[in-house]
Amino acid sequence: MFIGVIGGGQCTKGVARLAEEVGCEITMHGATLVCGGLGGVMEAACKGAVRAGGQTIGILPGNSASEANPYVQIPIVTGMGEMRNVIIIKSVQAVIAIDGEFGTLSEIGHALKRNVPVIGLNTWELSKKGKKNGDIIIAHDARDAVEKALAAASAQS
Amino acid sequence: MFIGVIGGGQCTKGVARLAEEVGCEITMHGATLVCGGLGGVMEAACKGAVRAGGQTIGILPGNSASEANPYVQIPIVTGMGEMRNVIIIKSVQAVIAIDGEFGTLSEIGHALKRNVPVIGLNTWELSKKGKKNGDIIIAHDARDAVEKALAAASAQS
Amino acid sequence: MFIGVIGGGQCTKGVARLAEEVGCEITMHGATLVCGGLGGVMEAACKGAVRAGGQTIGILPGNSASEANPYVQIPIVTGMGEMRNVIIIKSVQAVIAIDGEFGTLSEIGHALKRNVPVIGLNTWELSKKGKKNGDIIIAHDARDAVEKALAAASAQS
Amino acid sequence: MFIGVIGGGQCTKGVARLAEEVGCEITMHGATLVCGGLGGVMEAACKGAVRAGGQTIGILPGNSASEANPYVQIPIVTGMGEMRNVIIIKSVQAVIAIDGEFGTLSEIGHALKRNVPVIGLNTWELSKKGKKNGDIIIAHDARDAVEKALAAASAQS
Repeated sequence: MFIGVIGGGQCTKGVARLAEEVGCEITMHGATLVCGGLGGVMEAACKGAVRAGGQTIGILPGNSASEANPYVQIPIVTGMGEMRNVIIIKSVQAVIAIDGEFGTLSEIGHALKRNVPVIGLNTWELSKKGKKNGDIIIAHDARDAVEKALAAASAQS
Repeated sequence: MFIGVIGGGQCTKGVARLAEEVGCEITMHGATLVCGGLGGVMEAACKGAVRAGGQTIGILPGNSASEANPYVQIPIVTGMGEMRNVIIIKSVQAVIAIDGEFGTLSEIGHALKRNVPVIGLNTWELSKKGKKNGDIIIAHDARDAVEKALAAASAQS
Repeated sequence: MFIGVIGGGQCTKGVARLAEEVGCEITMHGATLVCGGLGGVMEAACKGAVRAGGQTIGILPGNSASEANPYVQIPIVTGMGEMRNVIIIKSVQAVIAIDGEFGTLSEIGHALKRNVPVIGLNTWELSKKGKKNGDIIIAHDARDAVEKALAAASAQS
Repeated sequence: MFIGVIGGGQCTKGVARLAEEVGCEITMHGATLVCGGLGGVMEAACKGAVRAGGQTIGILPGNSASEANPYVQIPIVTGMGEMRNVIIIKSVQAVIAIDGEFGTLSEIGHALKRNVPVIGLNTWELSKKGKKNGDIIIAHDARDAVEKALAAASAQS
C-alpha cells in the first residue's frame, strides 16, 4: 500500500509536527510513504516515517537526487517540475493533504479527478456556485487521517 | 498574446454558449486561444474563435492529432494525459476558467501557483480553514472575462 | 502538414545554412515547421521558414517563452526539459534530422519507434551487432530532404 | 547506487537469460535496479534481482500499477508513455543497455546527453558521417557489465 502525502514545501512548526505524525502513522500501519521529496510538509512526513522504520519515496521535480530531503530513501528524479505531482497521485492508493498552498490544490484536483481518495488535514475547502463540492474526507488528527486513507483505499480496490 | 480557456470536456448547452462567446471575444481582442483541444468547453471556445477568424491551439492529452475537436488549427500531441494541463498554463499569459470539474480545479491550482492570472466564469470558489482564499478574478460575462484576462496579463508583463 | 526539424542547439555555419534552406523548403512546400525552439539548427530552420513567409512552432524545454529563438511564432512552454522532444515527434508527420548530437539521436529513436519517417542530412548512422539497422532515409540536400519527408508522410497516411 | 537496465519489452530466451544475470549481479553488488517495469528484458532483469534478494523499481509508462511485471517491488505510475524513459535515465548513476530496439536507442541518446555512463551488451553501435561515435562502454557478460557500470558511476561522482 502506497500512501501519498502532499503539502507545502515550507510550513510552520505546528504543521511540520502534524506531518511528522502522519509519516509515523503511515509506517505504523504498514504502508509506504510517497511524496514530492522536498522540504516542509514533505520532509517532516519523511522524517516521521523513517524514524518509525518505514520506507519513503520522493518524486523530485528537478534534475538531481541531491535536492531530496535527507529522509527520502528512494529518490526518483523527473526533471519535469510540478508535473511530477501527477506521478505521485497515480502511484498511490490514497493521498493525505496537509495544509498546503496552490500546488497542493492542484494535486487535490488531480486526485479527485482520478478517484484517488483525498484525506484533508487543515487543507483546502472546495465549493462551486456557492455549494460545497468535492469529496475531501476530513480528518481530525494524524492517526485518523491514516486510518481513513487506508479504509478509503481498501473500499476502492 | 496567448489566452488559455479551461473547462470540462462535457458541458451543458448554456455553458457551451458562454465558452463560444469567450472564444469569439478572444479573437476580437487580437489574442490566440490555447486549450486542451478536446470537446465540451474546449470545442465551444475553439468554435467561437475560428468563426470570428481567429487562431486556436490545442494541447492534446493523447497520442493522436485525430482526437482534436474540428476547430483546433494547431494540434500539439503530448501523449501525457492530464499532465498536459501544465503546458497550457505555462504557454499562456492569462487563463479563463469556465465552469469545469476537478481537472479544471487542478489547472486553477497550477495557474495560481505560477502567478498566471485566472479569470473565473461560474467556476470553483476556494477557501481554506473557513476563509476565502485564492485570487480568482470573477467575471460576469464573456467580454468581461476576456477584458479582465488581457488587463491582468498586461499588468504582469 | 507538420514537419519536424531536429538538430543541435549549437552548430557550424555550414550546418546552419543547410538548416535555413530546409526551413525555407518546408514553407515552399506548404508545410508548418515544428522544432525545439532554441538556437543552432532550430533557429536557422525557423529563420528560413519565416523569411519564406511560413509558420513556425517551438516546443520549448524551459519555463519561459523568452527562451525561444526570435523566429518562433508559436512558442509552447513545457518546462519538462528534453522530454519535450517526444512532443515534437508526436506532433509531426515526418522529421528531418540535421547533423545533431545525442539529443538528436534520442529523437531519432523516438521517431523510429513510433513509425514517424526520419529523413537524415549528415546525421547519425545506426547499426546493431555489426549490421546496419534503422530506417533513416538519407537525403542529399535541403529540397531532397523536404520532398522525401512529404512523400514518406503521405505514404503513411 | 541505482543502476538502470534498458532493453526491449519482448526478447529472445537468450537475451532474457542475460538480462536475468544482469539483475542478479546488480543485487550481488549491492545496487538497486531501476527499469521501465514491463516485460522482456525488464522483467528478466527484475526476476534476477528479486531472486537474489535485491530491490527493483519500475517506472511505468501507463496509468496503472497492474501493468508492472511481477518482480517490480516499487511501481511508479507515470501515465506519460515513452517519456518515462527520461525519468529512468535521470534517476540512475549508470545504465546497462541489453539488446533493444528503437526505444532503447532513444534511452541511450538521453543517457549520453546527460553524461550518464552507458554499458552495452549486444546493443546499438553508433556512428556519424562514417566515424564511430558515442561512448557506449562495451561489456562481455553480465558481471562485466555491472562491474563496468559501478566503476563508471564511481568515476563520475
